[in-house]
Amino acid sequence: MPPLSDTKPPLGIGMVGYAFMGRAHSHAWHTVARAFPGVPLRPELAAICGRDAAAAEQAAGVLGWRSAETDWRALIERDDIGLIDISAPGDAHAEIAIAALRAGKHVLCEKPLANTLQQAEAMAGAAADAYGKGVRAMVGFNYRRVPALALAREYIAEGRLGAIRHVRAVYLQDWLTDPSSPMTWRLQSERAGSGALGDLGAHIVDLARYLTGQEITVTSGALETFTRERPLADGTGTGTVTVDDAAVFAGRLTGGALASFEATRCAAGHKNGLRVEINGSGGSLAFDLERLNELRFFAGSDGFTRILATEPEHPYLSAWWPPGHVLGWEHTFIHQARDLLTAIASGAQPEPSFADGLAVQRVLDDVLRSAA
Amino acid sequence: MPPLSDTKPPLGIGMVGYAFMGRAHSHAWHTVARAFPGVPLRPELAAICGRDAAAAEQAAGVLGWRSAETDWRALIERDDIGLIDISAPGDAHAEIAIAALRAGKHVLCEKPLANTLQQAEAMAGAAADAYGKGVRAMVGFNYRRVPALALAREYIAEGRLGAIRHVRAVYLQDWLTDPSSPMTWRLQSERAGSGALGDLGAHIVDLARYLTGQEITVTSGALETFTRERPLADGTGTGTVTVDDAAVFAGRLTGGALASFEATRCAAGHKNGLRVEINGSGGSLAFDLERLNELRFFAGSDGFTRILATEPEHPYLSAWWPPGHVLGWEHTFIHQARDLLTAIASGAQPEPSFADGLAVQRVLDDVLRSAA
Amino acid sequence: MPPLSDTKPPLGIGMVGYAFMGRAHSHAWHTVARAFPGVPLRPELAAICGRDAAAAEQAAGVLGWRSAETDWRALIERDDIGLIDISAPGDAHAEIAIAALRAGKHVLCEKPLANTLQQAEAMAGAAADAYGKGVRAMVGFNYRRVPALALAREYIAEGRLGAIRHVRAVYLQDWLTDPSSPMTWRLQSERAGSGALGDLGAHIVDLARYLTGQEITVTSGALETFTRERPLADGTGTGTVTVDDAAVFAGRLTGGALASFEATRCAAGHKNGLRVEINGSGGSLAFDLERLNELRFFAGSDGFTRILATEPEHPYLSAWWPPGHVLGWEHTFIHQARDLLTAIASGAQPEPSFADGLAVQRVLDDVLRSAA
Amino acid sequence: MPPLSDTKPPLGIGMVGYAFMGRAHSHAWHTVARAFPGVPLRPELAAICGRDAAAAEQAAGVLGWRSAETDWRALIERDDIGLIDISAPGDAHAEIAIAALRAGKHVLCEKPLANTLQQAEAMAGAAADAYGKGVRAMVGFNYRRVPALALAREYIAEGRLGAIRHVRAVYLQDWLTDPSSPMTWRLQSERAGSGALGDLGAHIVDLARYLTGQEITVTSGALETFTRERPLADGTGTGTVTVDDAAVFAGRLTGGALASFEATRCAAGHKNGLRVEINGSGGSLAFDLERLNELRFFAGSDGFTRILATEPEHPYLSAWWPPGHVLGWEHTFIHQARDLLTAIASGAQPEPSFADGLAVQRVLDDVLRSAA
Repeated sequence: MPPLSDTKPPLGIGMVGYAFMGRAHSHAWHTVARAFPGVPLRPELAAICGRDAAAAEQAAGVLGWRSAETDWRALIERDDIGLIDISAPGDAHAEIAIAALRAGKHVLCEKPLANTLQQAEAMAGAAADAYGKGVRAMVGFNYRRVPALALAREYIAEGRLGAIRHVRAVYLQDWLTDPSSPMTWRLQSERAGSGALGDLGAHIVDLARYLTGQEITVTSGALETFTRERPLADGTGTGTVTVDDAAVFAGRLTGGALASFEATRCAAGHKNGLRVEINGSGGSLAFDLERLNELRFFAGSDGFTRILATEPEHPYLSAWWPPGHVLGWEHTFIHQARDLLTAIASGAQPEPSFADGLAVQRVLDDVLRSAA
Repeated sequence: MPPLSDTKPPLGIGMVGYAFMGRAHSHAWHTVARAFPGVPLRPELAAICGRDAAAAEQAAGVLGWRSAETDWRALIERDDIGLIDISAPGDAHAEIAIAALRAGKHVLCEKPLANTLQQAEAMAGAAADAYGKGVRAMVGFNYRRVPALALAREYIAEGRLGAIRHVRAVYLQDWLTDPSSPMTWRLQSERAGSGALGDLGAHIVDLARYLTGQEITVTSGALETFTRERPLADGTGTGTVTVDDAAVFAGRLTGGALASFEATRCAAGHKNGLRVEINGSGGSLAFDLERLNELRFFAGSDGFTRILATEPEHPYLSAWWPPGHVLGWEHTFIHQARDLLTAIASGAQPEPSFADGLAVQRVLDDVLRSAA
Repeated sequence: MPPLSDTKPPLGIGMVGYAFMGRAHSHAWHTVARAFPGVPLRPELAAICGRDAAAAEQAAGVLGWRSAETDWRALIERDDIGLIDISAPGDAHAEIAIAALRAGKHVLCEKPLANTLQQAEAMAGAAADAYGKGVRAMVGFNYRRVPALALAREYIAEGRLGAIRHVRAVYLQDWLTDPSSPMTWRLQSERAGSGALGDLGAHIVDLARYLTGQEITVTSGALETFTRERPLADGTGTGTVTVDDAAVFAGRLTGGALASFEATRCAAGHKNGLRVEINGSGGSLAFDLERLNELRFFAGSDGFTRILATEPEHPYLSAWWPPGHVLGWEHTFIHQARDLLTAIASGAQPEPSFADGLAVQRVLDDVLRSAA
Repeated sequence: MPPLSDTKPPLGIGMVGYAFMGRAHSHAWHTVARAFPGVPLRPELAAICGRDAAAAEQAAGVLGWRSAETDWRALIERDDIGLIDISAPGDAHAEIAIAALRAGKHVLCEKPLANTLQQAEAMAGAAADAYGKGVRAMVGFNYRRVPALALAREYIAEGRLGAIRHVRAVYLQDWLTDPSSPMTWRLQSERAGSGALGDLGAHIVDLARYLTGQEITVTSGALETFTRERPLADGTGTGTVTVDDAAVFAGRLTGGALASFEATRCAAGHKNGLRVEINGSGGSLAFDLERLNELRFFAGSDGFTRILATEPEHPYLSAWWPPGHVLGWEHTFIHQARDLLTAIASGAQPEPSFADGLAVQRVLDDVLRSAA
């Protein structure tokens, strides 16, 4: 029995992948319509897809999906599915996304958009073609949906920082600090494309573009793999790491600002340290993902003000709790789902688009070439 | 169509109230079984109850309940409901909870347990009677389920702080700072019982008991109402505030520690500033609800360590995301639901029990008498 | 050979005591005229006084005094000494200060003013008598000279906080946490008067009065000595602690605000944790002595702003370094010396006066009686 | 009359310059022997030197020097002067330092060592020659004397961070954010050599070397001047800025770590934001000059610990106050004077040597060439 008055048109979701990202996406699809009653579509968790049938069925049960598939092509063929949610590793993105878009399915694709610039270009092309047919594509740079960062963007767009002088963004994690931490697909270039650069660097490059509304030209890049051989998880020996542990790069924004970036999985003690600082001729902003409800803002006098971004007038907050009742990381996916459903229903282009994803990919590719 | 493999026994929930707390509880009931696959019961959101039929039906639709009722007695009579969730104002708690328990329904009752000590005693008595019949009652001090605070309790229980010397707890909000903020039921003693004392003070009294495992003897108390007349929301004049805006009180723990408490709705700039500090002969802890993923711990040397309570081994965290992916305020209700369902299924007494709620009420009552 | 152009009139200083406070005062007397070229008097470090002749001579050499005395009466008799600086334990304050004032010597007396209310009253009387003869007395509540706190007072005086609702002040140290920490004169009531109450509590009581400009009525007080027997420093056995380890007390300000205070030497991990928070109808302030260059200010919107109180327009800062070049704890004594010398030269009453010291003493005495 | 027991051998100081740095150095020379009684030499403030006779005499009076000179050569010729303290702009460093060293005077030279690599090489050569004759030279990278940073170095030297992976250092100021801020000699390349790079960047380069004990190879550099024309201070028009407002550069440490640096005078809201973070295979450190008494240390578990570097066992702290009584920026110069006097008395090479200054200069020069 569905809830009373659940009269919105449904949109069937078919999701590829059920690991970390799949869990976060599932929670968002379950929650978005209750949190945001104004969302014009009601997502239905139609099918989850994974290669191993038993595992997929189990995931469907645990995560609350109505059915399980073992081939993503089956998702695309189903009439009850209108949107393909690609939460699989990067090497699968291009093929699935392009097929889905051609079949008239909307697409939400996890970041980074692709493993190579060539794939990203093909995907952006497919999205542009599909757009004319009313089909929408979005890339999952979820941190655009942190209320404090959406607020930061508003401040910059309103000119409260003046001309941007500096962007300083780092994404620090530490799960590869220990050399005995085992091999995973994330450390294989053929699966993951790159390491910290694509996984973490993509986020901060996207945020720099999103927050400032400007493009980035890479001026230098350096990559490093501190541990080149790691034990295999099954104990049968070691595997060779073929991606970067860390990336340091710098660039210029269109408007002349200096920008510096660092992404690493070897910053001991930092669990999820995405930090962004922006300095302008009239003010400054600072943000730390480990305190994601807070934005520090300098308006040109006195000092930095800690804004707890939980007021009703802050982005996305009208859906949630009274001031001071903080949100968590997973809310970014709920907000992302809201924005995507709203755009689909209205026919607008959801952002970040595949063109945005491609722009990020170009920056990453320039870093790779600069480092080589 | 339910999700695949959803084979757990169901437990029908009937909830009284659909305002702020009702929304938070609804989200928890929807989410708990997916977040914690090990939970042995599957909550079904059977019915929501409010006096106004249209509003209740609308709430059922928005919050995802299967039906709506206008009389809480109807909830108790329904066979498909096994647990009554009381999210209504304090003056309704005693009557509903006692009736539900007598009817063999489990009860989750929002805090504070009651508006008066007499009511709290009756409720604790009813819970004790029901316990023997396999019926369980719990009071909703949700902050026990903040992972950082549950971790703090573990540290204290393990003796890592030594003998407790000081408890210092404040709960600072600011929504009554402005004298033109209007009257609400929360400012009427006949509805709310007390003001900041019962609403906010109850939380910090419960936490002091929970964290230390000790009881509190009140040694002094002072209450203040800074604004005694406030405009009515309908513009027809003013109403008299009959509860406290702020309470300051002090006491002793069983083990000899000095404890100080402050609860206020007039601390400008503080949105949800529940802060607890505990000093012992061997270490110290500090916590701030506005940064609820963090626990600061002094182990006897060097300085306070900021523990980001998002590691898999931290309480409740195995259900969630990788380290550093922070949780929000609402997660406390999901954790509360998990603990309640687990206790019901196993026959254990869920904590905090109504006896705990009564112990808190006794402290609040002592403060009222000391202040008088 | 004195420095060039050192043409200010000299004021000879005679200081009683050469321990912790004596060292801090010596540094201030040496530095004040260079740091503040506008100070109208040039302090000359004429003589230091201690009972043990050899130790006093050594202290004179190390701390830069011209001579040493073993009897404070000798200081008062010397013509080259115009100001007696009492940096000795509290049991010596009254006798020395009263004798000095009667002899026409200005007095700077360390806090708390006295060990008993009776002594404090006599001292305030002597200061009032001396005032008419052009002799000035000041009590050394040095934290009034923290720039961030002097700035806080300005903000409150300008009405930027509106009506004061709450004062919340704690002074947390931890050097008595360990039960094996030895006896000292500070733990003997006959020498020190009281323990944490007089040593630490006096500071926060004075600051509450200074910042708000209001008086305090005590409504409750509790004292505790967690460790009653401590080893003697010479290893000959144990001594009985006759002062409090900790004090918790509450009160009302003249204007109706609720005030709470805590002073303790058993807050593990806190070295010098003097924290003051003030909430008003229009804004709030927060301060922490361990970060003494910072004031957090909430002006009624957005959030707390961290003001780094190192700008030229901030109190005392014109004497020092460019913005952001932070000051330390000892600067409070240099600022205190400046204000005292300036008041003496102009004939004004330096603040805090002995009357201020007496007002603090009355509060401490009320706490003692409330706790008894 | 000198203080009692002032029996140490004197060392006459002659200082060139009496602006910001001259004031800080004067305070250090006045204070060092009292703060550190173990210092084996007693500095005598013999003469201060500036081109304008009246201004130099006034400075001597205000800052407490015995005489004034208008030609630095006169300082070198005086028999009562054994050490030349060069606190003048960078274009004067080489000539004065080399002449002083050849004349057998010890030298303390402000940073950066010189305006050009050629000058720095000549200075390092002169210092090497003088060393054999018992004459000592030191460059004034005063931040090596922040206790928290000296402690950080100890931790790294003890291996508590393991292999260094990342150095991340920024020095953020904002006094050039406003385009109407006037021209000064610091913005002229012929006087200052470079802008933020030499003034601020030199500090963080030196600290990276000091903390890790490793050398830096520059891999990329970018400079920017956001405001190229600024008003002249005398109102007669505008002048052209010929130095950088900001520098972003990256490099490698000898041991393979990635290092990133940023120095800017256009980071709105940052007054003195020197921040250093170091991540190793076994731990991490973080420091912020605006909170210079604090070191944050991650030892491999739990989280970052805030160490208040004010314990007696911390570097330099035995000279000062009890734990928690914080130091300020100026203390770095007192510590520097202690270390220099101690090295001179013992015949050791004071650090940082001119060879260290030259190594920093090489890094800065590489940045300039990379940016060109």
